[in-house]
Amino acid sequence: MEEKIVSIVMGSDSDLPVMQEAGDILDELGVAWEVDIVSAHRTPQKLYDFAAAAHTRGVGAIIAGAGGAAHLPGMVAAISPLPVIGVPIKSRNSIDGWDSLLSILQMPAGIPVATVALNGAKNAGILAAQIISVGNSSVQESLIAYKKQLQETVEKKAENLKK
Amino acid sequence: MEEKIVSIVMGSDSDLPVMQEAGDILDELGVAWEVDIVSAHRTPQKLYDFAAAAHTRGVGAIIAGAGGAAHLPGMVAAISPLPVIGVPIKSRNSIDGWDSLLSILQMPAGIPVATVALNGAKNAGILAAQIISVGNSSVQESLIAYKKQLQETVEKKAENLKK
Amino acid sequence: MEEKIVSIVMGSDSDLPVMQEAGDILDELGVAWEVDIVSAHRTPQKLYDFAAAAHTRGVGAIIAGAGGAAHLPGMVAAISPLPVIGVPIKSRNSIDGWDSLLSILQMPAGIPVATVALNGAKNAGILAAQIISVGNSSVQESLIAYKKQLQETVEKKAENLKK
Amino acid sequence: MEEKIVSIVMGSDSDLPVMQEAGDILDELGVAWEVDIVSAHRTPQKLYDFAAAAHTRGVGAIIAGAGGAAHLPGMVAAISPLPVIGVPIKSRNSIDGWDSLLSILQMPAGIPVATVALNGAKNAGILAAQIISVGNSSVQESLIAYKKQLQETVEKKAENLKK
Amino acid sequence: MEEKIVSIVMGSDSDLPVMQEAGDILDELGVAWEVDIVSAHRTPQKLYDFAAAAHTRGVGAIIAGAGGAAHLPGMVAAISPLPVIGVPIKSRNSIDGWDSLLSILQMPAGIPVATVALNGAKNAGILAAQIISVGNSSVQESLIAYKKQLQETVEKKAENLKK
Amino acid sequence: MEEKIVSIVMGSDSDLPVMQEAGDILDELGVAWEVDIVSAHRTPQKLYDFAAAAHTRGVGAIIAGAGGAAHLPGMVAAISPLPVIGVPIKSRNSIDGWDSLLSILQMPAGIPVATVALNGAKNAGILAAQIISVGNSSVQESLIAYKKQLQETVEKKAENLKK
Amino acid sequence: MEEKIVSIVMGSDSDLPVMQEAGDILDELGVAWEVDIVSAHRTPQKLYDFAAAAHTRGVGAIIAGAGGAAHLPGMVAAISPLPVIGVPIKSRNSIDGWDSLLSILQMPAGIPVATVALNGAKNAGILAAQIISVGNSSVQESLIAYKKQLQETVEKKAENLKK
Amino acid sequence: MEEKIVSIVMGSDSDLPVMQEAGDILDELGVAWEVDIVSAHRTPQKLYDFAAAAHTRGVGAIIAGAGGAAHLPGMVAAISPLPVIGVPIKSRNSIDGWDSLLSILQMPAGIPVATVALNGAKNAGILAAQIISVGNSSVQESLIAYKKQLQETVEKKAENLKK
Repeated sequence: MEEKIVSIVMGSDSDLPVMQEAGDILDELGVAWEVDIVSAHRTPQKLYDFAAAAHTRGVGAIIAGAGGAAHLPGMVAAISPLPVIGVPIKSRNSIDGWDSLLSILQMPAGIPVATVALNGAKNAGILAAQIISVGNSSVQESLIAYKKQLQETVEKKAENLKK
Repeated sequence: MEEKIVSIVMGSDSDLPVMQEAGDILDELGVAWEVDIVSAHRTPQKLYDFAAAAHTRGVGAIIAGAGGAAHLPGMVAAISPLPVIGVPIKSRNSIDGWDSLLSILQMPAGIPVATVALNGAKNAGILAAQIISVGNSSVQESLIAYKKQLQETVEKKAENLKK
Repeated sequence: MEEKIVSIVMGSDSDLPVMQEAGDILDELGVAWEVDIVSAHRTPQKLYDFAAAAHTRGVGAIIAGAGGAAHLPGMVAAISPLPVIGVPIKSRNSIDGWDSLLSILQMPAGIPVATVALNGAKNAGILAAQIISVGNSSVQESLIAYKKQLQETVEKKAENLKK
Repeated sequence: MEEKIVSIVMGSDSDLPVMQEAGDILDELGVAWEVDIVSAHRTPQKLYDFAAAAHTRGVGAIIAGAGGAAHLPGMVAAISPLPVIGVPIKSRNSIDGWDSLLSILQMPAGIPVATVALNGAKNAGILAAQIISVGNSSVQESLIAYKKQLQETVEKKAENLKK
Repeated sequence: MEEKIVSIVMGSDSDLPVMQEAGDILDELGVAWEVDIVSAHRTPQKLYDFAAAAHTRGVGAIIAGAGGAAHLPGMVAAISPLPVIGVPIKSRNSIDGWDSLLSILQMPAGIPVATVALNGAKNAGILAAQIISVGNSSVQESLIAYKKQLQETVEKKAENLKK
Repeated sequence: MEEKIVSIVMGSDSDLPVMQEAGDILDELGVAWEVDIVSAHRTPQKLYDFAAAAHTRGVGAIIAGAGGAAHLPGMVAAISPLPVIGVPIKSRNSIDGWDSLLSILQMPAGIPVATVALNGAKNAGILAAQIISVGNSSVQESLIAYKKQLQETVEKKAENLKK
Repeated sequence: MEEKIVSIVMGSDSDLPVMQEAGDILDELGVAWEVDIVSAHRTPQKLYDFAAAAHTRGVGAIIAGAGGAAHLPGMVAAISPLPVIGVPIKSRNSIDGWDSLLSILQMPAGIPVATVALNGAKNAGILAAQIISVGNSSVQESLIAYKKQLQETVEKKAENLKK
Repeated sequence: MEEKIVSIVMGSDSDLPVMQEAGDILDELGVAWEVDIVSAHRTPQKLYDFAAAAHTRGVGAIIAGAGGAAHLPGMVAAISPLPVIGVPIKSRNSIDGWDSLLSILQMPAGIPVATVALNGAKNAGILAAQIISVGNSSVQESLIAYKKQLQETVEKKAENLKK
């Protein structure tokens, strides 16, 4: 089976510092990815074209990050048959992040968005890798190794604390 | 100048009992209107076509109602140059209405949605009439008469209370 | 038809840094405007006089910004037949902006306020221009051009990101 | 000194079932009162006239109840020099009462409203009596007796529980 | 009639910077006041003694400020027959002030606390003066003059803005 | 060592249906208990006397339940050296329970209240038994048996589901 | 490649009416599934065993539903390398669903849970099918057909509305 | 009876600055304690082993602190028969602390967690000492002395304020 990639899109380049973490962890887990800026509100036609075509060009999962009244993840999910992961971003003038969180999470029946924590782009990357791993056992092995490494880091810190 | 009409759209026919109040008050104020179901999430292409064409066929203001992660008003506003009025609807499984309220209100700079109160379709209708009245003095007279009537109703109730 | 102007009022001069954005975008869109400080709580008579007269002196839409228990937009809407746009402002000692947001948005049936996002004065200006554009096709053309420019800015940023 | 009375106003007759409790407890505590419907949004001129005159006709404290974007208590306080007690009312389409609570409580520096609990009209009545009692020792005696009676009721219930 | 004074109490000396504003405005309005630290949680007996005696020693109104799970205003109101004004304070580790606000406002039927805005000690002082003014016409005159001064300050700022 | 008992107090007999669950589970776990109505706001002296004496008469833990601006648990904790468990109760006119929850939980440094979930009187009873079990191994055995029983109930339901 | 199945677990059989919708839509989309009751709090060992083994016995995605302080989805995600979908359930004594929503969504970096809307089990089922479809093109075709059907249903309702 | 100790665990070493206060106050009150890092999400097996054994090795109470979707306190309580005190921590990317607060507090019937205020590790330490004191009268004496000292500190500050 052809190797699936992950597509990362965000509504604005001001979201890049948060969204970068998704790409970094995908690199670490050995999953290929691409990135683009697609604004639901400022480039609606590009959003439509992107979402309609993604599954036809080897994308296996989409990560979409946006802040405020965040419509990008939900609109991508409305158009694409792929699993869409939404990252709520706490932007300037956000009401403590509640706006983006609820705009992404509370999708109506029929159109899911897999929502992660506020500013949780790293987890979005891991989740995308988990999705890719369904058809790719080497990625699953990376994920198991990553979990082990998380555990060892905590154990090392616990040892240091006791000293 | 050609008479402008108001276009009322909603994401689902379950929103109709709330949205009906917009049409009723427009009738009372003497403003013509049309109605359609346009779902951002289930009919994204229809949304695009509707929003791109509305201003070319005599529509002067759009009222869009939706619940949950409500993307309809914001996506219409993203595409149409017309003023768009958003009605947050408290739907089943809504989190007390906060989700639709914030999804509609907290639009990013550049793309306003004129948001009214939760389930506030009547006020959306009045606001649409106020917008139409900018170029139509007979609608403004209806609005002034309507305000007077609100006042008289309160005064009559106050008299009854004192008796 | 006489050229309508937009009237921008705010409760305090401390709101000016936020509200200035409304005037700036109206300039960009070619719509004339005026500005004043009108406090619902400290100058109630001036509020009354302002709101009662605005539609008689060529104002087509009013933008009112206020923080905390924000009563200015709703009281102006109570008195004037014009469309009133409310800008919730996150002031000092505000509870994260929730107080001004709900004080402006949750108006009773009969008296709408077109509410925009927290500190969303720029969107208030665009919305006012959209309202004026109902009777003024050159403003509508400015709005269409502005939308195009938003789109091109995103596209340029997307190209830069890919480099 | 002339006997001061308490004036109870509310935005709508739908608030009467809640506000009636204020009058009832004032009767019990031996304080005279009057009642009227005054809507900030539908009868703004009546609001102005009422608030400007109250202290000149023997009113010692004003109780104002309202729901949603509740502007009545704050606007009365803006105009009258008297102490104004605000009762947030949980009306239909309220967002769990948060809107009226914050619209009444979060007044700007200079214009206080003495806010009581959601639907707390009984406490508004007691607070009004406490205010009147500052210049009226027989009302203070009634208040001390009322406190004693609250205590005895609890003690009787505690005895019953133990049986 | 003997001149009544206002008693200002707070739960901790860390509340002093906020509560100082109550004393300052009382000075400006010509009302005498006293101040003390009384902690509901750390000096419960002192709280009891203070609240039981205040009305016997010439106090006409009590202002109580506290943060977090703020029990001071409500416990003073439980014991004293005087009107008690509560000032919610946004302390360290407060949840954005919601905790103190709700702990003070939502008192059960029978025991009112006149709650003002978050950190609203200045308004607590004005409200206390309004209460004292019920039996003291010179304080009422100060309050009317204060209102006029607020209005003139806004008008001057409005003039400056127009220049 | 003398057998410690648990004391259950509540602010009103309307809290009894919720608080009864604490007594029931204590019976099941073999821990003796007593019950009383003690209102922080209506019987402040009784509160003081109760809290000051409890640890001198064989009480090992106190469970205090209250709604709204719930001061009972915190005031008992202010006076008694015993561990105090607070049960936030969702009473009539509560704001969805947030008021009692925050009034009980957010105690200042120095005076803890062990808070359980909204209406969580059953868990308050279990927690009291866990506290008693620190000096009583037979209660600890009851608790271990209770945990096992919870587990078996779930396992039985899981089996039924699969059939 | 071996056909992957979806495993649906929930904390209590009281969650079954909500969670049933996940199974129903998986049937409709042609994806095999299993169901079990696994309580994080009452059967922690079963949780551990379930989560550690799922990926070794042909499960491709896990759906976990829970209410209140919902720990099941996050604990499964802590142990299993598979993608875990969390369904927040609005249970009795929940605080309007906020507790389960935040307990599931706000996972720390390293351990994602793909969260769907409150009570959104149907969307959890669709998301699980989308995940399975990454390695299974016939499921992707079902998903595309399902999207088309959603669209046609809306269009039919829109036609009915216009009649 | 053997002297019981308190076990303090936290999900990450970034929680140490907050959790340190628990150890400090336990030292002051003369109660022995131990500390470890145990992450529910990154070291689930260590969590299981820790919680299953604690009561067999002289631990009398457990304090568990965690932020975000905080599962550590609840999972320890699921496995151990000991009283478990939960400290919600306001971590980076927390939604103002609401996530950890509700994840810890809203435990289902059967599995209590004794929750303290946000970042309230000091109170967790005092509560643990109160629990230990049930079987240890010298710790109870320390607690009574500590309460007296809190009172004297406030009284000294009150005297300073008056000077």
